[in-house]
Amino acid sequence: MERPPGPWKLTDKGRATRARIVRHSAELIHTHGLRATNNEFIRNAAGISGSQLTHYFPTKESLVLAVIDWQADDILEFHRSERFKAFDSVEAFQDWADFYILSGRRFEDGCSLGSLASEIVKTDLDIHDELARVFKQWHDIFREGLERMQQLGRINASADPAQLAHMFLAAYQGGMLLAQIARDISPLQHSLYAAVDHLRTFVTTPDDSVSP
Amino acid sequence: MERPPGPWKLTDKGRATRARIVRHSAELIHTHGLRATNNEFIRNAAGISGSQLTHYFPTKESLVLAVIDWQADDILEFHRSERFKAFDSVEAFQDWADFYILSGRRFEDGCSLGSLASEIVKTDLDIHDELARVFKQWHDIFREGLERMQQLGRINASADPAQLAHMFLAAYQGGMLLAQIARDISPLQHSLYAAVDHLRTFVTTPDDSVSP
Repeated sequence: MERPPGPWKLTDKGRATRARIVRHSAELIHTHGLRATNNEFIRNAAGISGSQLTHYFPTKESLVLAVIDWQADDILEFHRSERFKAFDSVEAFQDWADFYILSGRRFEDGCSLGSLASEIVKTDLDIHDELARVFKQWHDIFREGLERMQQLGRINASADPAQLAHMFLAAYQGGMLLAQIARDISPLQHSLYAAVDHLRTFVTTPDDSVSP
Repeated sequence: MERPPGPWKLTDKGRATRARIVRHSAELIHTHGLRATNNEFIRNAAGISGSQLTHYFPTKESLVLAVIDWQADDILEFHRSERFKAFDSVEAFQDWADFYILSGRRFEDGCSLGSLASEIVKTDLDIHDELARVFKQWHDIFREGLERMQQLGRINASADPAQLAHMFLAAYQGGMLLAQIARDISPLQHSLYAAVDHLRTFVTTPDDSVSP
């Protein structure tokens, strides 16, 4: 199979065109769904010709893969930002939950990556591995933060970092879907804050934090 | 708008045909997605004519509403079954979590209702209210069980039944999606068991269960 040109092999102009196609495709897919987003919509939205589109993305797989990567970069970069200090404290998780509840961010749009994932798991597009890889990286950010908290004695040894990391990710994905369904932020608020509350039950007291 | 005939106005044969259309539509939508399921697929799968289909379901809304109700009946009936004793104990929630993890039920298929919901929130089909109503009923089953646990002194007064009910629902929806993405049951197992663990932190000890 001929591989599409990756962004690193393109001229500046080519990179800009490729990025424009990915951005418009991501928006169309998020608003209308993966199946409803056809080549014609993408060509019109990005202002490109059919041959330009197939030059950069010869198959639907290659385009959806680029959309996944683009959305993943966005989400992973946000989670790796200075703000959350690599999730090494309860305060960082609280701040993360507060971001979705208190910042005025629109919950109505849901999670772009989770929403795309829920469509992809029902298709036979050959992109499941890439999707799994991206969610694993997201999980790893939480898990590594929780492991560090444990090493620093901030949470006790009974906490299971891999389990708690999935708890946070599921609370976010599930809470977002429920909030979109209810058209009300409460389900997301409840699920995120319950997850942080649960993390708090593992916080060490001065008594049990003496041994590393 | 002309309303389609509800199942209660039909003959036995009419009811059976209507039920067959709904069942096949539900399967098609769950496997291929809402948008990819067109009238032709449904007619072929259910073995009916176009005029039969429009007789029972004159619009896509009316058919999708019937699919939602059909799936909701299934899920709500399961949650209201004797087995879970109206969710009035930690053991009932543990049994519920175990059902998804230990019974050998296929997590790969995801939650039929959650999966449909994630598509519906992106469409302009006028069925959001019905979807919200069904998820509220599901939430109510958990919430009422938790309220009863609190009244019975099984969990303490600091527990928030509405919050914990959303925690369970989000853990299930989010965990299912993550398990489908990972093609591994661990995320679902982790999120459901973390939710039950969190409920356990509210269980009263003999000391604080004396006041009702």
